[in-house]
Formats: sequence, structure tokens, C-alpha cells
Amino acid sequence: MRVHNFSAGPCTLPVEVLEEAQAEFVDYRGAGMSLIEMSHRSKAYDEVHHQAMRKAAEVFGAPDDFEVLLLGGGATLQFAMIPMNLLKQSELGAYVDTGAWATRAVEDGGYHGDVYRAWDGRDEGYRRAPRPEEVALQPNTRYLHVTANETIGGIRLPEFPDLGVPLVADLSSEYMSRPIPWDRFDLVYGGAQKNLGPAGVALTFVRRSVLETANRELAAYLRYDLHAAKDSMFNTPPVFAIYMMGKVLGWVESEGGLQEMQRRAEAKAGRLYAAIDGSGGFYRSPVEQDSRSLMNVVFRLPTEDLERDFVAAAADRDLVNLKGHRSVGGVRASLYNALPNESVEALVGFMEDFQAANA
Amino acid sequence: MRVHNFSAGPCTLPVEVLEEAQAEFVDYRGAGMSLIEMSHRSKAYDEVHHQAMRKAAEVFGAPDDFEVLLLGGGATLQFAMIPMNLLKQSELGAYVDTGAWATRAVEDGGYHGDVYRAWDGRDEGYRRAPRPEEVALQPNTRYLHVTANETIGGIRLPEFPDLGVPLVADLSSEYMSRPIPWDRFDLVYGGAQKNLGPAGVALTFVRRSVLETANRELAAYLRYDLHAAKDSMFNTPPVFAIYMMGKVLGWVESEGGLQEMQRRAEAKAGRLYAAIDGSGGFYRSPVEQDSRSLMNVVFRLPTEDLERDFVAAAADRDLVNLKGHRSVGGVRASLYNALPNESVEALVGFMEDFQAANA
Repeated sequence: MRVHNFSAGPCTLPVEVLEEAQAEFVDYRGAGMSLIEMSHRSKAYDEVHHQAMRKAAEVFGAPDDFEVLLLGGGATLQFAMIPMNLLKQSELGAYVDTGAWATRAVEDGGYHGDVYRAWDGRDEGYRRAPRPEEVALQPNTRYLHVTANETIGGIRLPEFPDLGVPLVADLSSEYMSRPIPWDRFDLVYGGAQKNLGPAGVALTFVRRSVLETANRELAAYLRYDLHAAKDSMFNTPPVFAIYMMGKVLGWVESEGGLQEMQRRAEAKAGRLYAAIDGSGGFYRSPVEQDSRSLMNVVFRLPTEDLERDFVAAAADRDLVNLKGHRSVGGVRASLYNALPNESVEALVGFMEDFQAANA
Repeated sequence: MRVHNFSAGPCTLPVEVLEEAQAEFVDYRGAGMSLIEMSHRSKAYDEVHHQAMRKAAEVFGAPDDFEVLLLGGGATLQFAMIPMNLLKQSELGAYVDTGAWATRAVEDGGYHGDVYRAWDGRDEGYRRAPRPEEVALQPNTRYLHVTANETIGGIRLPEFPDLGVPLVADLSSEYMSRPIPWDRFDLVYGGAQKNLGPAGVALTFVRRSVLETANRELAAYLRYDLHAAKDSMFNTPPVFAIYMMGKVLGWVESEGGLQEMQRRAEAKAGRLYAAIDGSGGFYRSPVEQDSRSLMNVVFRLPTEDLERDFVAAAADRDLVNLKGHRSVGGVRASLYNALPNESVEALVGFMEDFQAANA
């Protein structure tokens, strides 16, 4: 029996993918060993690796002038690598601060380059993303960093700003759920453990021309150009995480690709926000309408006691991992690509029952 | 049917561990989801995580004043993090250069601190490890870095030098195969994908007092002290790799622990080197007697053509992954902890047959 898993990440994955991986786990396709026991230079793993890279570019519609990188250390290590690789003397990195993850990106970035907040949502208590005209860029800005979706705050950037400066985006919690305008971007990145697979690999797309001028005075692991030149096999890659990511991307493709994932995301989140907004104030979203996340739906109840009861009673109905992040409280339902419609329906049904019993 | 897998890494793992992981892969102990679908803050994963940390320290006999860190990016990222965290202004990092991996450590280290080679095996063509008295330390040396075992060259440091400077060691390809004198060490590290589990996690032990003075002017992921303070859950850890590492460590424990792994390593390597040395020169080791690796047994045949034939004919007998690293050629048989005696016996039997047919 599968539960309804609303975890914010690591999160629910397609059960077909899990079953396929299980079947071939001990003896990989008659090799007499597991895939995870093979040299990363073996023919079998090489195919898995390159297929995952190809599928990532195909499903996401990345143009040919972007390199696909598969890296360890999660999005968190990317916070350091971006300024290390991209910022030269006297160049600045601009950051849009929309919440907890944007804050980490700009604070970490500051140890490895000159960075500043081009928009700051702190004073408003992180209730929305900025309009493009609110983003204040300084001269010599090399890139504008945005967090496409704030997993904790439930805030989504409704559109990617076109301000004449290349964009860099953390896509961790909304990867492969909407198309992105590649021509505005120099780099996008994210941890896999939401829409892409298990934890253990970060997926980065970087424009090839960026690599030509990237800083090379770094240890090998920290260099984008080196990972690109070696197809992310400069050192032993996180084999199993990449293998699973390839399978999940194949599933996305077989389900209809990026457009279909976007349609489903809008439908699932739309259904849940409608239930929240239609509850007469019993449930309420702390996020402004235009900035609401399609992946992480954050909502509040009249009291914190009720929120606690809600999360516990939901778990009794196999609706699990609904507790909001400890830093903000409340309830959070994460609706990643692999979460079926039925789980959203079950949640909405439970919300109605809970309200009827407690309003 | 399992093949005899002599891969240098990722490498053979205990089949019992693989089967156990397979059985609980889709539905983790009745949770209604896979372990890789769970929040890393969940109770179930928290237990897996902390048990792996505890077992690592127990099996390896690490004293209480060492912290256990589970990190992404492999040993390769550690090459950068070590000088970043440990070296202060005017302090030097000394490196013993015994081959390909030591070279990477010192070259990468040089981008993030002042480092030098305290012994250099290049001119001799990397045929041995140094005697302690050959290691030339400069004033203000903060640490002496050694590569306990060179996976490519098949060279092992017979003893850890006691020169009055704290040691830092790359243990990647010999982790948990011999005890180490902890009192001489400030830090040991290595990728898991040899004796510890699948690729995707690096295991680092660092002395607690080192963390108190470690550099904090770094992005979060690059800070040892922060990973230690958060039990390696500052960001989402590589869940599956850690889970498997915990199981492999449990296997090591159940098989008799570190002493037994050392005994087996000496027995397996001893058997193979005896076959090489007893072949009347048909097989020969390029490594000096005292410096021979117990994990990666490198040997040559009279000609490169014969080496190619040997590797191909061995594969026909299900003795696989015996080709030497492309940078050095020859034959390499890796004898990690999970490789059974029978695989070594099968290899020795094949070597005798091959010699009889080709001498």
C-alpha cells in the first residue's frame, strides 16, 4: 500500500520507476553484478550516464549551447561554485531575495565573490516575488540570481525577469515543471531530490560560452569547465542517483513531457488553492496570489493547535508529511510531478471533513 | 550468477547487503514509501543516518574526539576542503607524492592554500612509498598529507609517519582494511565506493579541536565545522549512499570487524603476490616489496599483447574488470573487503593456466 506522500523533498517518486529499479538491483540486466558495483568507466554505466544527460536536456528543452553537469554536494555546493566560476575582479552578482533559499544563495555567494541583494523581501516577511521593475541592478552586474521556487515559503517567481543581465536560477523545487526562456539564462541548477529523483546529485545547465571565460584557478571539483569537458566523469559520479534520475526523466517523457507536467502542476495546485480560498477563511494562504508556488502549497489554519491536529489527523488517513517547515510553521503540501491527482483529491476531501469537524 | 568482480571502484559489495536493500527498496519496512522518497528529517531516515555515523566510528575504532562527516563530491572535493578549512595565513600543507591520487591532492590543494611536496616519487616513476626519514618537512607545516593507498599505482604506505606534524590521509581505496594510529591524525577521508558502499558519499573523520579553529569564511557546504554541528544534515544528504554504507559497515562488523578485514586483506593479497612472484618472471609486480598494495594488486606480463589477451581470456571465465588503469597499463586486480577468497583462488588458477598456455 502506498501512502499519499506530500514530502517537500526527498519526495514521492513514480512507483513504476521504483519497481523497475528494484527488479534490476542485484543483477543488472544479466551482468552478474549490481549497477552500483560497476566501474563508472564500464560500458553499461557509461550508457546510463550519458542517457541521463541527454534526457535531461531533451525533456527540459535545453538548447545545444548548454552543457549538462551532474554534480555532488546538492544545490548548496552550487551556491559557492556559481560566484567562484562566474565572477571576475570588479564584477558583481545580484540576488533576488525571496526567502530561505535565496538567502542561503546570497550569503554563501558572498564568501566567494562580490554580491548584493537587488531585491529584498525580508521586510515584507517574504510574502511575494518582486515585479521585474522592482529589481534594482547595479553597474558591473555579471548575473542576476533568482530562486524560481521557495520550497519553504511556498513562493514562486511568476516570470523570469528580462533586465539585460544574464539570469542564474535555483530550480531545485520546480525543475521540469515549467519551460524556461533559455536565451535569458547563463546557468540553472538544482538538487534532484524533488522532481528528478533521489537525493545525491545536482543537475546544472551552463551556457558553453560561460565556460570559456570561467575561472580556472580552483581545485578540480569546483570547476564547471572541467566537469563539462569530462562529461561529469572527472571523478566517480554519484552512480545510483544519476541512474534513478535517468529513469524518472524517462517517466516524465512517457507521461507527456514538460508541457504535460506544467499542465498537471497547474491543475493540482489550482485544485488545492481553490479549496483553501473557498474555505471561508478557515484555511488561508500567506502568499500573495500571483506568487503562489505550484509545487509547495503552504497554508495556515486558525490556530497552531488546529494545525497540529490537522497534520496528525491527516497522517491517520495516510496523508503524510504535511507539516510546514519548522522555520515558518503551518501546513505544507508539496505537489511534485510524481504525486498523483488522487493524492490531491484525498487531501481536499480530508480538508473539508476536518473543517466541518473543527470550524 | 555472480561474476568475480575485480573492479577498482565502484566495486563488488556483499551480496547479502544488496539483497537486503532490494527487498526493502519499494516499501521501506511497511512505511508505504521507499526510503529514498522520505524527508531526510523523517524519523526513519534519521535512524539510518545516525546509525551509519555510529557504525563508521565503531568499526574503524575512531576515538570520541573525532567527528564523522558524510559529504558529497567524493574525495576529490575533499582535496579542496582540507586546505580551505585547515590552513591559515603563513601555514603550509605538506604532501607525500606517491602517485596519481597524491598528485591530485597536492595540485588541487595549491589553489586553496600554500602547499608543497615533502617527498616526490615522480622521478622514480612511482615505484614505492617513502621511508619516514625521507619526508622533508618545512617550518610552519600545519599538516602532512599522505595517500594511504594509490589505487592506480598499487602502492601502499606501509606505515603512517610520526614526524611531529598532524597527519591528514586519503584512505579512499583502503578504508576499513587496517587500523590507523588516531593520535597522529587530524583528519582522514575517502570516497565510499571501495570498501564502504556505492559511489555518492565521502566519509571524513575530523578531530574536534581542528573544527574549533577551522576557517569559517567559506560558503556553508565547504565548512567542516558546520557539517559537524549539523550531523551532516545541514543540507539534504545523499540518502541512498549513506543507507548502503550503513549496511556495508554492519556487514563488516558481523564478519569480525577491522582486525578480520585486515587479516583477510593480507591473506588475499599474499596469495596473489605469491602467485606473481612464483611465476618465474612471467608475471611481475612493478612495485617494491614493502610498498605493495593489499587492495589493488598491479602486475605486468611479458608483453602488452599478452596483457590484452590475459584480460580478455579472464573475462571469458567470469573474472572481470582486470584491466589496469589506462594511465599505467598492465593488469590490476582489486581485492576489496567484499571480494570473496574464491575469486582470488579462481584468478590464481586462471593465471597458472594462462601461463602454461602462453609461456
